Amino acid sequence: MHDLDLDALLAGLAERRPRELGRAISVVERGGRQAAELVRRVTRRGQNAAVVGVTGPPGAGKSTLVDRLARARRAEGETVGILAVDPTSPFSGGALLGDRIRMQELYTDPGVFIRSMATRGAMGGLARATRDAVDLLDASGFDWILVETVGVGQDEVDVVRTVDTVVLATVPGLGDEIQAIKAGIMEIADVFVINKSDRAGADATLRDLRSMLQMSEPRGWKPPIVQTVASENRGTEELVDAIDAHRVYLEQSSEKSARRLQQLRLRVETLLKERVLEAANRGHALEEELARGFERHEDPYTLADRLFESAVRAVGAAGGRGGEA
Amino acid sequence: MHDLDLDALLAGLAERRPRELGRAISVVERGGRQAAELVRRVTRRGQNAAVVGVTGPPGAGKSTLVDRLARARRAEGETVGILAVDPTSPFSGGALLGDRIRMQELYTDPGVFIRSMATRGAMGGLARATRDAVDLLDASGFDWILVETVGVGQDEVDVVRTVDTVVLATVPGLGDEIQAIKAGIMEIADVFVINKSDRAGADATLRDLRSMLQMSEPRGWKPPIVQTVASENRGTEELVDAIDAHRVYLEQSSEKSARRLQQLRLRVETLLKERVLEAANRGHALEEELARGFERHEDPYTLADRLFESAVRAVGAAGGRGGEA
Repeated sequence: MHDLDLDALLAGLAERRPRELGRAISVVERGGRQAAELVRRVTRRGQNAAVVGVTGPPGAGKSTLVDRLARARRAEGETVGILAVDPTSPFSGGALLGDRIRMQELYTDPGVFIRSMATRGAMGGLARATRDAVDLLDASGFDWILVETVGVGQDEVDVVRTVDTVVLATVPGLGDEIQAIKAGIMEIADVFVINKSDRAGADATLRDLRSMLQMSEPRGWKPPIVQTVASENRGTEELVDAIDAHRVYLEQSSEKSARRLQQLRLRVETLLKERVLEAANRGHALEEELARGFERHEDPYTLADRLFESAVRAVGAAGGRGGEA
Repeated sequence: MHDLDLDALLAGLAERRPRELGRAISVVERGGRQAAELVRRVTRRGQNAAVVGVTGPPGAGKSTLVDRLARARRAEGETVGILAVDPTSPFSGGALLGDRIRMQELYTDPGVFIRSMATRGAMGGLARATRDAVDLLDASGFDWILVETVGVGQDEVDVVRTVDTVVLATVPGLGDEIQAIKAGIMEIADVFVINKSDRAGADATLRDLRSMLQMSEPRGWKPPIVQTVASENRGTEELVDAIDAHRVYLEQSSEKSARRLQQLRLRVETLLKERVLEAANRGHALEEELARGFERHEDPYTLADRLFESAVRAVGAAGGRGGEA
């Protein structure tokens, strides 16, 4: 990897220059030592942005909701960073032309920064990189950071777990799908949106959501349900209010600090897991041991023990640092 | 944890006794040293069963398909172990009474063993425990092992990645849902089932699946699409044939060995990740360091480095073994 001038990048971030921001996000997408150094240095600047995740199944209109939210914040003079962690998002260039054109208006606004996160890469790497990118946007002084993510897959759930306010968007007529989402994300949603609520079945969806919420564990915050037709900008104000109310709740309760600690825990655990796999695979030891163990019909526990021990020895000998380039 | 007589358990497994099998599976669900020892000892006996996963969204009729498959195998005199990794499965007691009664017939057949896997527990632990349970059933001499899992969530995808043949069930009229499933599981499905194929929209679903398959990477095996009405036992024979054809393909190509190596890799990586978190959290070090780092506004990379280094030192001092009870 060529050597980047991190000082120059950081200076660019401080002035919210899109070019440096883009390059800095590429650094955290690649991971490794430079990503670590970059996040280390921006973390010292403190964290002030409101970080909102918008998630839900494909077709729920998440991008349009993000677009509406971004415009509403801009109308109040606040700056907005948008990260699209959804390969089908128009922000990633993956949608209908009309949507893309609408998004491009936002691109020309210097108070808005839009970036699509690469979904390729190592398992778990996407969530780490996205959370690191949030830190970079935060360090650049954006008031709001909106993270759009499709609510499917562990990586995406992990992304959602690292935001302050989770907006879960659904649409009428997805009976089974709501059930499917429930498994992972229902429990962590702070605001529910029934988008396309002019469609048939909106009342049934509202009833379903309400009864699900009644059955769920009571907590300090009672997640509101907002009905929107994002394509016609209906319900945007109510959604903004719901998000603001949640933000006030976070600030006034102990919840914000609890949530940020939990975010830190998830990020650290992810990094520890990356570290051990790196250490175990130094010099392709993992692949070689696996191939050998497979030939000998060894069980995974015996193999994992041996690999863990040799990783520990290797790291100990190298003075504790992971095997990064 | 009380001390179990592993020899007695293993003797029970050798005779396919349900009581010992159930207790052995509980051991792997708990994890830790006894799980490791149990898997170690059964692995030495070799692996012979055909391991088939049946996955798909809620409402696709997975349990009914599993029920039909199990009966078809029994009719050929073969024994069947069933693991339900789906909280809504009738095998787990989570469904309509009629379904449950039908399943109970299978319970009284000594050639069938049915077990619901607990979905609670540590992140990633479910996939590990389920794969360990497959080993136990294999060691007990079951010819077929059927794993039913809802196709949502990383844990479930991880379960599916550790079977030999992946059957993906869907039903007509789930346009968006198919898209959602596509993200994780489409790529690893070996046999597609359109269940409830007497419903309106079955032709459209067939077309959608076909065009998706045409767009996907070509590989040695071309996944067939089977149409079933499992509730009326229609299409069962075709499904059995498709699974058998895939099994023949696995045996005759290098694919079986490649897949088993990949399964071993996933299992070892999961164990390595568990090991490093255990080691980092020995004596609650992880929690304490996190709380301290959070107070000081430390970044996750710095924290992860420190925790990794102290975990390595602690493990080195203790002689390399993980911090298990």
